[in-house]
Amino acid sequence: GKTYKIASIPGDGIGKEVIPVGQRAAEAAAAKHGFSLTWTEFDWSCERYVETGQMMPDDGIAQVKEHDAIYLGAVGWPTVEDHVSLWGLLIPLRRELDLYANVRPVRLLKGVQSPLANRKPEEIDFIVVRENVEGEYSEIGGRLYRGTENEVAVQEAMFTRRGTDRIMDYAFKVAKQRKRKHVTSATKSNGIVHTMPFWDERFAAAGKRHPEIETSQYHIDILTAHFVQHPDWFDVVVGSNLFGDILSDLGPAVAGSIGIAPAANINPEGVFPSMFEPVHGSAPDIAGKGIANPVAAVWTAAIMLEHLGETEAAKTLEAAIEATLQAPETKTADLGGTANTEQSATAIIEAI
Amino acid sequence: GKTYKIASIPGDGIGKEVIPVGQRAAEAAAAKHGFSLTWTEFDWSCERYVETGQMMPDDGIAQVKEHDAIYLGAVGWPTVEDHVSLWGLLIPLRRELDLYANVRPVRLLKGVQSPLANRKPEEIDFIVVRENVEGEYSEIGGRLYRGTENEVAVQEAMFTRRGTDRIMDYAFKVAKQRKRKHVTSATKSNGIVHTMPFWDERFAAAGKRHPEIETSQYHIDILTAHFVQHPDWFDVVVGSNLFGDILSDLGPAVAGSIGIAPAANINPEGVFPSMFEPVHGSAPDIAGKGIANPVAAVWTAAIMLEHLGETEAAKTLEAAIEATLQAPETKTADLGGTANTEQSATAIIEAI
Ligand SMILES: CC(C)[C@H](C(=O)O)[C@@H](O)C(=O)O
Ligand SMILES: CC(C)[C@H](C(=O)O)[C@@H](O)C(=O)O
Repeated sequence: GKTYKIASIPGDGIGKEVIPVGQRAAEAAAAKHGFSLTWTEFDWSCERYVETGQMMPDDGIAQVKEHDAIYLGAVGWPTVEDHVSLWGLLIPLRRELDLYANVRPVRLLKGVQSPLANRKPEEIDFIVVRENVEGEYSEIGGRLYRGTENEVAVQEAMFTRRGTDRIMDYAFKVAKQRKRKHVTSATKSNGIVHTMPFWDERFAAAGKRHPEIETSQYHIDILTAHFVQHPDWFDVVVGSNLFGDILSDLGPAVAGSIGIAPAANINPEGVFPSMFEPVHGSAPDIAGKGIANPVAAVWTAAIMLEHLGETEAAKTLEAAIEATLQAPETKTADLGGTANTEQSATAIIEAI
Repeated sequence: GKTYKIASIPGDGIGKEVIPVGQRAAEAAAAKHGFSLTWTEFDWSCERYVETGQMMPDDGIAQVKEHDAIYLGAVGWPTVEDHVSLWGLLIPLRRELDLYANVRPVRLLKGVQSPLANRKPEEIDFIVVRENVEGEYSEIGGRLYRGTENEVAVQEAMFTRRGTDRIMDYAFKVAKQRKRKHVTSATKSNGIVHTMPFWDERFAAAGKRHPEIETSQYHIDILTAHFVQHPDWFDVVVGSNLFGDILSDLGPAVAGSIGIAPAANINPEGVFPSMFEPVHGSAPDIAGKGIANPVAAVWTAAIMLEHLGETEAAKTLEAAIEATLQAPETKTADLGGTANTEQSATAIIEAI
């Protein structure tokens, strides 16, 4: 079988507790399905920043480029300002590796409680595809008359045709692999925001390039309402950097799974390795106690294996997760269970 | 008793069906509480645009300025582009009258079904205060290389200290009148958006000016998740023009009430009349059938009377609404009832 080289960056806090579990689970699935994984571990983290003044070394990006995928835990710790840890690690990875598609599956798993009344698992099953490198997150902006009565702060949102078209195409490509073959666009073109009529035009043009896919679009305000009232309407949802950021937290919340949700930062052309990270953060409040939920890390490993082409192994991991969610002894306290990290991990590995 | 002069603009579609109900209800409450209302009706609408080429006359703003408040139905109709109807009526009203605070109460009323599981009315009771004239809705932006491969669209978000400070102060003032005395700020200062660290600084400064109010803040992505998972955490939520727009649709959705929610566009200094409008639109699909739900219009009339200082009359209207929500015969089909507009209206008036 094949061998895949993975760059593993446990990062901070519970990242260091759950990434090893994800690695064990991925190893077990690899053994079962006849391929192998080799891991290079990087200590890039806030701890490293405090010791060396850098989140990662100068040639960090070059080092991870040598791999087939990047498996990241969580970045951020109270000793280092968010701004520093993000710009020192997460954002350069996303931008310099051109990971322009941020992809988050939203699924109500059996054994997880949705905050919505009367929703069955088959009613919440969609994917948010977020543009991950431009739009509202341009680096352009700043202040005038800082610190005075006349202070003004500005931020430029910038959408390019290339950047918009390629995220649209990626979303349609994802939809093609799914049963319902539907893409919903998140927009806000009814008011003042100049970039959104442009977004709509590019969405319409993409729809013409992919005529076998159905489309719909909603303004972001009412779309968040529909997520809560009609989660069953959605299959693939494509949004700008900011709208996608919002929808990919709201979606997992609706599915009751913000603590177990996985995310992928994809370079669809495969020029650079893609990066896989749980949605949850480093969780300083519970870090070091051995009680963190490893499900997000394992689910993240699953979508990494799927991206590498090992679809069966991914299915094995997802089935193992679902199996352990059925009983309190095999899931952690945040999901109403009684297991600690190691007990949950053991149960997942056994289920594989 | 006092007499209040109200400018009434039914607008389009169901606006023309529900605004008369709101007026009848407001009249009944006024009679009961010893004050009176005089109405000037304006036919400003898409229909007027199609006939005359203008949503409102050139001196429209000057005409409404002569009133104590503006009572607006709904703006928008398929025969006129959204962009035209908004810029011809809604946006000039908001901007030229400096209605810089958009205020939407979010409340789970008894008799309304929330999409959330197991939520009691006292657990969903907050107010979204949205900055209504600047921020992400600046008029600055456009395109370069339109229609070509190299096309770029930009939008400038612009936050001024004056604009930010005054919406913060308004939110804190609203909180002072409430029991819990808590303001939550919607932000996104952990990443790249340059305007949001500025927003946070001004929120902190406002907190110091109002030390009797408790504060908290969340990034907009996780805040939308908290609206779904912990609506009971919130009392007053202050957001920028875009974040407030999103939260003030999501909030009513969580409370099951997007079709019955009211909104106020306030000029807190009272230099210009404030404007009151239901959150719902003109609803072309049901317009003209006599089945529109008049509750949003009546609730909107209630917050208008409250703004005018007639707090007892406002309470009478709100109690009348709640009374009619308890039985299917007195509420409309969208709330699981059997009444048409007139039956629902009659029930509300009787309850007053
Ligand atoms: C119609 C649109 C411009 C408007 C807005 O975004 O302000 C609407 O969504 C609202 O909330 O009143
Ligand atoms: C930490 C922050 C910059 C980031 C984002 O907004 O992209 C986070 O919310 C995410 O979704 O990964």
